[in-house]
Amino acid sequence: MSTSPITGQVNLGVIPGDGIGPEVTTEALKVLEVAAPGDVKFAQTTYDLGAERYLATGEVLPDAVLAEIRDQDALLLGAVGGKPNDPNLPPGILERGLLLKLRFELDHYVNLRPSRIYPGSVSPLSADVLGKGDVDFVVVREGTEGPYTGNGGALRVGTSAEVATEVSVNTAYGVERVVRDAFARAQRRPRKKLTLVHKTNVLVNAGSLWWRLFEEVAGEFADVTTDYCHIDAAMIYLSTDPQRFDVIVTDNLFGDIITDLAAAITGGIGLAASGNVNPDRTAPSMFEPVHGSAPDIAGQLIADPTAAILSAGLLLDHLGHPEAAARIEEAVIADLAAREPGARRRTPEIGDAIAARVAG
Amino acid sequence: MSTSPITGQVNLGVIPGDGIGPEVTTEALKVLEVAAPGDVKFAQTTYDLGAERYLATGEVLPDAVLAEIRDQDALLLGAVGGKPNDPNLPPGILERGLLLKLRFELDHYVNLRPSRIYPGSVSPLSADVLGKGDVDFVVVREGTEGPYTGNGGALRVGTSAEVATEVSVNTAYGVERVVRDAFARAQRRPRKKLTLVHKTNVLVNAGSLWWRLFEEVAGEFADVTTDYCHIDAAMIYLSTDPQRFDVIVTDNLFGDIITDLAAAITGGIGLAASGNVNPDRTAPSMFEPVHGSAPDIAGQLIADPTAAILSAGLLLDHLGHPEAAARIEEAVIADLAAREPGARRRTPEIGDAIAARVAG
Ligand SMILES: CC(C)[C@H](C(=O)O)[C@@H](O)C(=O)O
Ligand SMILES: CC(C)[C@H](C(=O)O)[C@@H](O)C(=O)O
Repeated sequence: MSTSPITGQVNLGVIPGDGIGPEVTTEALKVLEVAAPGDVKFAQTTYDLGAERYLATGEVLPDAVLAEIRDQDALLLGAVGGKPNDPNLPPGILERGLLLKLRFELDHYVNLRPSRIYPGSVSPLSADVLGKGDVDFVVVREGTEGPYTGNGGALRVGTSAEVATEVSVNTAYGVERVVRDAFARAQRRPRKKLTLVHKTNVLVNAGSLWWRLFEEVAGEFADVTTDYCHIDAAMIYLSTDPQRFDVIVTDNLFGDIITDLAAAITGGIGLAASGNVNPDRTAPSMFEPVHGSAPDIAGQLIADPTAAILSAGLLLDHLGHPEAAARIEEAVIADLAAREPGARRRTPEIGDAIAARVAG
Repeated sequence: MSTSPITGQVNLGVIPGDGIGPEVTTEALKVLEVAAPGDVKFAQTTYDLGAERYLATGEVLPDAVLAEIRDQDALLLGAVGGKPNDPNLPPGILERGLLLKLRFELDHYVNLRPSRIYPGSVSPLSADVLGKGDVDFVVVREGTEGPYTGNGGALRVGTSAEVATEVSVNTAYGVERVVRDAFARAQRRPRKKLTLVHKTNVLVNAGSLWWRLFEEVAGEFADVTTDYCHIDAAMIYLSTDPQRFDVIVTDNLFGDIITDLAAAITGGIGLAASGNVNPDRTAPSMFEPVHGSAPDIAGQLIADPTAAILSAGLLLDHLGHPEAAARIEEAVIADLAAREPGARRRTPEIGDAIAARVAG
């Protein structure tokens, strides 16, 4: 993993997307500019991709656009997605053709999702559960394998004899690199604890592979405490004892599921940031809020841009500027603590307030 | 689905299992005897299966035992499983060789898991979330397909070139019957609402099949309201707005994950009952608590038998005795409401108390 700082001109590809995507992206860029170290100059290129473009032109991710994107130093994405159940937008078109395509093409094998309960954020968990201590963990979700590879197919479609399969593909190459990344991240944290989440008692082929490589790589990180739990037990722990987690490493689908629960318990997807990281920097990493395009509230400037802003922080951290990233997170924490319950600020007001705190 | 009452001699196969399994099964049987209608006489046969038998004899589920079990009218299972990480008990041996084998061989295509927050049970959710209304939903988890079929394999095992796959198999035959069962259950409930949970935007082959049959069968149940959410969004709803659910239908793996979260939010797996149901009664259905064998607390008679007792209630309901089943649930509700926080009763005391309420 390469962590040396990138300075000078940084080519930033911006994909605002659909719905509230452009609204929250504007605020993230605002904060990014203020937080960036003096020796970093972002050169932005905006890419018009998402449901709107697809519905207007039939294009999802043209090869020429992908080639341009590949040459950027980093990517910021708002959110893509059209109206639910739009008959002109079959399920999977944008997900597999754009979002997952970018993750796979740019080898985003570490899908990074920090989960902290910040003071002032509203958790659906009881005071008893929250009273056990701080909740502060990171999910390292594998991003390029598992049931997300598009393997599988269907036979006799539309008949009463239809058979449909989905194949989870797991390779030693793919599992080892994400496990090693997760161990390294755990080692850099105070508690130094890594939990593997899988379902080794049922998915025995994939489970054995994950288990073996987890054990093997653990040998290189003697100071990291290891732990394992099944995905179903993880549900119980996340909702009754989230404090037990420090870093979680898991497969693509389990990670999708865990991180939405993690987002919910830590105050909602309005706060959940994520990075689709290529730790080797062989292609640009992409940072995006976990939430979707929320077409129902788009255009009103009432979306909370905090998740997008925190994603910009992850971007700076990935570029090797951890202090700048920390300033964004601290500004968000201060803003959250100052939020008055029930008071509603508009999207740009929240962005301005956080930017002002970052500026100091 | 056949719901005519079964009376006279009912052959009941009992698999107490390991750890706390036998302890909670004793209490479930105690309550079952008291609750059963006068015209039902249980003839019990006990089967010694589980980790202990496997470790002692190498046998998991001999064919002759399976043949005997198949001739029973219903099955009650405690819990199976040995000590975690026992090197003599590789992951999957008991799960795939015994638990899942029974579900598959006996065609338990409806894995039924009711989730209610009873008065007095301790939920990890906040008062704000709980204050929105009663939580009372049922998960109908498909039990004979999906990623649980044991399809898949591994190549170059143990090397850095290993590839391991897991195949989720979904058939129109298998999906349609469980979806129809779920619609029928939703129709019998006051709210008449059915939610399909899947991940149609990524698992497009299986997702299209589930979606198509859900829509098709919906046509036969015009009075049932339908809803859909992705598995990741379901995590958010279950933890922030569980009241939105009435009946959920979902695949085998998503159902495994959802029902542990459902158990956690409704007061813990100490209360979660389940039925592995063959609605066509072509083979005996099996009823079991969702919890495991908990070897750490076994032998002390401190396990809570409530989930096993509620599972006995589901058994009576399946045999066509809903009033007897309701008496068990009401007795449990009364017992829970009377529990003093912090007071610890022993396993048989809880069983006695609930049996007394059922009798009286
Ligand atoms: C939109 C979808 C393809 C995506 C995923 O499943 O990974 C989303 O849920 C996420 O978590 O980023
Ligand atoms: C023990 C295991 C095979 C089982 C499952 O995954 O179905 C359990 O978790 C359950 O939910 O009954």
